[in-house]
Amino acid sequence: MQDFSGYPIDEPPHSFISNSLSVDAQTLQKQIDELSTFSDTPAPSVTRILYSDKDVLARRYIKNLMGLAGLSVREDAVGNIFGRWEGYEPELAAVATGSHIDAIPYSGKYDGVVGVLGAIEAINALKRSGFKPKRSLEIISFTSEEPTRFGISCLGSRLLAGGEELAKALKTTADGQNMSFLDAARYAGYAKDQDDLSSVFLKKDHYFGFIELHIEQGPILEEEGVSIGIVTAIAAPASIKVDFEGNGGHAGAVLMPNRNDAGLAAAELALAVEKHVLESGSIDTVGTVGILELHPGAINSIPSKSHLEIDTRDIDEKRRNVVIEKIHESAIAIARKRKAILSEFKIINQDPPALSEKSIIEAIEAASKELNLTHKFMISRAYHDSLFMARISPMGMIFIPCYKGYSHRPEEYASTQDMANGVKVLALTMAKLSLQ
Amino acid sequence: MQDFSGYPIDEPPHSFISNSLSVDAQTLQKQIDELSTFSDTPAPSVTRILYSDKDVLARRYIKNLMGLAGLSVREDAVGNIFGRWEGYEPELAAVATGSHIDAIPYSGKYDGVVGVLGAIEAINALKRSGFKPKRSLEIISFTSEEPTRFGISCLGSRLLAGGEELAKALKTTADGQNMSFLDAARYAGYAKDQDDLSSVFLKKDHYFGFIELHIEQGPILEEEGVSIGIVTAIAAPASIKVDFEGNGGHAGAVLMPNRNDAGLAAAELALAVEKHVLESGSIDTVGTVGILELHPGAINSIPSKSHLEIDTRDIDEKRRNVVIEKIHESAIAIARKRKAILSEFKIINQDPPALSEKSIIEAIEAASKELNLTHKFMISRAYHDSLFMARISPMGMIFIPCYKGYSHRPEEYASTQDMANGVKVLALTMAKLSLQ
Repeated sequence: MQDFSGYPIDEPPHSFISNSLSVDAQTLQKQIDELSTFSDTPAPSVTRILYSDKDVLARRYIKNLMGLAGLSVREDAVGNIFGRWEGYEPELAAVATGSHIDAIPYSGKYDGVVGVLGAIEAINALKRSGFKPKRSLEIISFTSEEPTRFGISCLGSRLLAGGEELAKALKTTADGQNMSFLDAARYAGYAKDQDDLSSVFLKKDHYFGFIELHIEQGPILEEEGVSIGIVTAIAAPASIKVDFEGNGGHAGAVLMPNRNDAGLAAAELALAVEKHVLESGSIDTVGTVGILELHPGAINSIPSKSHLEIDTRDIDEKRRNVVIEKIHESAIAIARKRKAILSEFKIINQDPPALSEKSIIEAIEAASKELNLTHKFMISRAYHDSLFMARISPMGMIFIPCYKGYSHRPEEYASTQDMANGVKVLALTMAKLSLQ
Repeated sequence: MQDFSGYPIDEPPHSFISNSLSVDAQTLQKQIDELSTFSDTPAPSVTRILYSDKDVLARRYIKNLMGLAGLSVREDAVGNIFGRWEGYEPELAAVATGSHIDAIPYSGKYDGVVGVLGAIEAINALKRSGFKPKRSLEIISFTSEEPTRFGISCLGSRLLAGGEELAKALKTTADGQNMSFLDAARYAGYAKDQDDLSSVFLKKDHYFGFIELHIEQGPILEEEGVSIGIVTAIAAPASIKVDFEGNGGHAGAVLMPNRNDAGLAAAELALAVEKHVLESGSIDTVGTVGILELHPGAINSIPSKSHLEIDTRDIDEKRRNVVIEKIHESAIAIARKRKAILSEFKIINQDPPALSEKSIIEAIEAASKELNLTHKFMISRAYHDSLFMARISPMGMIFIPCYKGYSHRPEEYASTQDMANGVKVLALTMAKLSLQ
């Protein structure tokens, strides 16, 4: 039979797998809908913040599905969840996949989730097809891809990739309510007996490869009618925190020439961010002020403090760093002009871009072709755990189309057909890599 | 003796009162310090929000001091507190004074409080001097001069002045946590058996006169070394709520040309407010964006909604209304330019300015002269309950110097000497008016 199928005896029957792969997209959709109910804001919005009660319930849901899929489940000290399907050569480095289930305030139900629940369905589909992995397959549900609570994005994957500085910093990190990271982790059942988080670190080449399935979060695949995006690089993100301080005072009593309004300084800087991004001249440069807070925040009080958080990204690290430098110069100039104090200008992170590994790109491309799915190579402008997994493993990403490119909002949507396609490509890619 | 003192027999012995008036400024300071401890933020800041637990405790403190001063205490349906010293001709319209004890977030301990605790000390000083009032004297502690909780400034005095529209609107008004005004009032022990707040209204000329003692909230008296400011007019305030809406989206994935960032629309409008205020060309025009909120408020999310609250004031009503019109035009133009939606532009209030009554001004001036205190006539650029009391009563205000003009911030400060001067002038003015 194997000779007849045209494969040499020691090479895997890929086309056999691809023909017998059936993805249960209805169940996947039902699971996505169920997971979305663990939210701190009303449907259709989703808000699931790291280590909150709803996050803990969502984690339990994921671990239960991993168990039902026959995976052996473990968690590390910060709550990265691992579900492992042991291969028949378990001493070989495993093939990993995964994404995240946390959700920023008032966002949607597909971002990250498709890459976790979809990975479980990919394993189930492989099992149903009769496939047996040589290298073990592992699903990771990463802790806190979103920076909402502690201001640190991709917290789990940064630590997995050996973030020594981060592990140290987390000992003294607190959230906006002044709850420490470690207390919050313990509240959720993690970091129980240890302040040292270095146990989370994985060695380089711990995995044979890492693949993340994700909605595009941009409009290109939908607009072009392409089923699969194969990510060749992830844009380099940076985030900055800025504080201005002024004298504040009563909105009626302090005359205009005597003011040094910290709120207007913040407004000017927000517009300067936009200006400097546009000055780059490249469509790939983006910058956003997602957080702008005024203190004391009363209609009849001149703001005495303002706080901004700025996100800027580019596929060209140098060009992005020029934007950061210009934002810094503007912040200084605005403070000087308004006689306000620039009390903080802190670059929280300034990560380099990541390139996908040729071997992984080729495996995804081959899988797409075998499955007769249209595909294109593209850049990821959004931030993913893959960016950090690339530091310790060959990395690649599979994108699927999403409605109008919407993400981080309740209208986020991917069709069951597009998800089924993505899950199939993921399953077949993992199968291929598993047998290498 | 009366002949010898130079007064006709049926005229009051003012100089006798002024000579024997002794104000206990140390006790007043102690009471101010004690009252400041009823706060939801740490000292030296004060935060005392309408109908909160701390507000209820502060109200109890005031009523207790009124009782100790021998006043008969009553409260109306929204919690305006009245302490009355019955005159020997109690059927005559009373002379009233008062201010407020609520405090915006992270503010100071003198704004409003000096006019309530100072009034109680003025009554005590008059009692110690042996004075007997002809017309009754009444102290009012007004409910919610600050707009913090329900967005309505001078809520208590507006209602006292017969705010029929306001009484109606309050039936459906809720705070930021969606707690209704009436539920909040009931939580604090008010509005018990009634939804109709018209019981609060006072008839025109219910009072013979109303005088408010207050810190200047501006730097003029301190800079010029003048003890007493006699207010001739209160600037006309207006407040506006604005909402912008855009599509939001992921900060990495949505390219700059495809954005309609509601946060940047808000930033532009904040700067436009400043511009239009400065265009008026008058030092008396002021405008402030004290509240600017972004939704969802995450560093990696383009703001899909923004909310601003704008305060603008002038002593010239027409000039202020021109500024409002320009702000409205800018809001429309900014929304159009940014392809965002101006989903709300609501003028919450647009009050006319108030003039002090000549008879009250003269009484304050005479009192200052008798007490050998330097004084000057001035404009109040800040908002006071007096603005609304002027609708139903002859009105006047006494200002005292405060440190650097600071107000609505923890550094707010008035010296015991300046407070003692203000209390003396208030006491003597009330005594004079009481005997008319």
